[in-house]
Amino acid sequence: MRLSDLRTPCLVLDRAVLMRNIAAMDRAVARHAVALRPHMKTAKSVEIARLAMRGGGVTVSTLAEAALFAEHGIVDQILAAGITPRKLAEVAALNRRGAAVKVITDDLDMARTIAADGGVSALIEIDCGEGRGGIGPEDARLPLLAAALGPALAGVLTHAGHSYAATSPATIAAVAEAERAAAVAAAERLRAAGHTVGIVSIGSTPTALHAETLAGVTEMRPGVYMFGDLFQAQRFSCGLGDIAVTVLASVIGRRPAEHRLLIDAGALALSKDRSTEAAPHDYGFGRVLGLDGTASLGAATVARAYQEHGIVACDPALPFPDLAIGALVRIAPNHACLTAAAHDRYHVVDTGDAVEAIWPRVNYW
Amino acid sequence: MRLSDLRTPCLVLDRAVLMRNIAAMDRAVARHAVALRPHMKTAKSVEIARLAMRGGGVTVSTLAEAALFAEHGIVDQILAAGITPRKLAEVAALNRRGAAVKVITDDLDMARTIAADGGVSALIEIDCGEGRGGIGPEDARLPLLAAALGPALAGVLTHAGHSYAATSPATIAAVAEAERAAAVAAAERLRAAGHTVGIVSIGSTPTALHAETLAGVTEMRPGVYMFGDLFQAQRFSCGLGDIAVTVLASVIGRRPAEHRLLIDAGALALSKDRSTEAAPHDYGFGRVLGLDGTASLGAATVARAYQEHGIVACDPALPFPDLAIGALVRIAPNHACLTAAAHDRYHVVDTGDAVEAIWPRVNYW
Repeated sequence: MRLSDLRTPCLVLDRAVLMRNIAAMDRAVARHAVALRPHMKTAKSVEIARLAMRGGGVTVSTLAEAALFAEHGIVDQILAAGITPRKLAEVAALNRRGAAVKVITDDLDMARTIAADGGVSALIEIDCGEGRGGIGPEDARLPLLAAALGPALAGVLTHAGHSYAATSPATIAAVAEAERAAAVAAAERLRAAGHTVGIVSIGSTPTALHAETLAGVTEMRPGVYMFGDLFQAQRFSCGLGDIAVTVLASVIGRRPAEHRLLIDAGALALSKDRSTEAAPHDYGFGRVLGLDGTASLGAATVARAYQEHGIVACDPALPFPDLAIGALVRIAPNHACLTAAAHDRYHVVDTGDAVEAIWPRVNYW
Repeated sequence: MRLSDLRTPCLVLDRAVLMRNIAAMDRAVARHAVALRPHMKTAKSVEIARLAMRGGGVTVSTLAEAALFAEHGIVDQILAAGITPRKLAEVAALNRRGAAVKVITDDLDMARTIAADGGVSALIEIDCGEGRGGIGPEDARLPLLAAALGPALAGVLTHAGHSYAATSPATIAAVAEAERAAAVAAAERLRAAGHTVGIVSIGSTPTALHAETLAGVTEMRPGVYMFGDLFQAQRFSCGLGDIAVTVLASVIGRRPAEHRLLIDAGALALSKDRSTEAAPHDYGFGRVLGLDGTASLGAATVARAYQEHGIVACDPALPFPDLAIGALVRIAPNHACLTAAAHDRYHVVDTGDAVEAIWPRVNYW
């Protein structure tokens, strides 16, 4: 099967690029004495987890991911979104069947519920400056949470999501240091109070790649590095040629006089993520590549995205005669996590256009 | 089963509101001598199609929808996105198995391919001012397209997507008149040239509700009216109390001092659609309602959406003690088509919190 045999729109994964990205992260993490616990929220695939894992566990974002990975023998997991009583019961059920899914919390009542359950260990979520979840390392609740968890305390965890707003390698390195320092400070404070803190977990793709020191950290949890995207390429995480996932689309309309194409990849196939809007280069809803994945269409971008239609704004010099109705293009995504989530499977190629495998994704919750 | 038994995030459909919205569209269309061909791109559900259909056919946006509806005996369909040679072959296969799926085109080569196939009829796509797909009714290609289609010509079709930009019932009515006039002009021009034009198809939810006359039109194709959303409520299509779909979410973090909650519905559960950004009232990524679907949380909105986290900005007066970790809220969507597409099923309630049915959606392509 070749790409031209596929029903469009659909998701294409270039395994050669994926493996290169995985190797690049391996090298970045190998600079430090830390483990890599890849975050599978982006790929949501057992096959890709096995390629990215390095002898340790994984990070997951949903119970659906947790259940799938556990079923496939990937038992060491952290579910890295604040747990609720109802979800705790589901994690406990997975753990009774052999999984070792750890959860995170920053809530005292929830910590007591976790301790009472007895079958699930938890990391305390620390806020290192992003202001999303977690408590600061100096927060008065930190020792109370550890005491409430008791033997269920597995460690501390933070995520410097604000590394995405950093606009130079030096500022990313500064955010990475804040991420490290917050997690280590929380761990040291708890150890000083007599607690055992086994896991000190931090990480995002930018901070994993640009951290200068990770002293005191035990593991990193990057995820989007596996695929890269147009936003990460502008955050020093990858190059434009290192984007492993693209959406295959067909030309369904042509307006040569307006330098425009209509394609069958719109908001549902690409997502409405506009993260490159504030980046140095705004790619609209995605960068339009040729069927071979190269920039043969010049500066073409998806300028507008309707539910199932994308309007491609083209270079006036584009060879419209080569772009008949049904011609195929590939769209590099602004944000790989959201674009990949619009599709239920990967069509895996290896540089060329032969579809060598189909790997399912576990979407939804 | 009650809403509190569901794993969050998930999609809730209030059947009472759905039926009210369907009845409102029935009344609007009954003002005119036209058929209703509901567009199923929003609901993507056989059960909902059967509630919305009025003796005629449906409109679909994907081959996946076409195949599902055909399989369930809903054979009269228009696939309302520009057809390609490869997709034509799939439609022809459906039609050989008993379906009557019609396609649309504005391309001369494609028209010849459709005519050569012989098993699929087509409507010529007309541009009534939106500038997305189609040709103008005065375009020199119109008679050429009809001649190329020959006996495969089923009619003309247009869509006034720019009705979404109209900010008063009067301007929506003006767009509706432009939509009607473009389709009827194209049909009359073709009839004058000796062609039979059976179907004159127009419609969006705003124009279907606000058109003053539909003389010469044979059918309307609205879709989002079944659910309504926060954007449509600001386009005179429905009230805030007429939104039939909501996302059920759990509180996973609390910051009372910052008047903020963290919920487990983020960009994947809500979509990143920001269509209310330019509307009179900007609801962020959605309006946060109580578990009962009422505005018991005041002016709360999802102010930020991460992949699986939503930050809820709350009224300072909110009773935080009632919003413990695990408490349930419901989010009314900016854009129902995109939010519903993030979920694989509807949990159907009827005003209350008892889940009376689960209806699957046909996502992907």
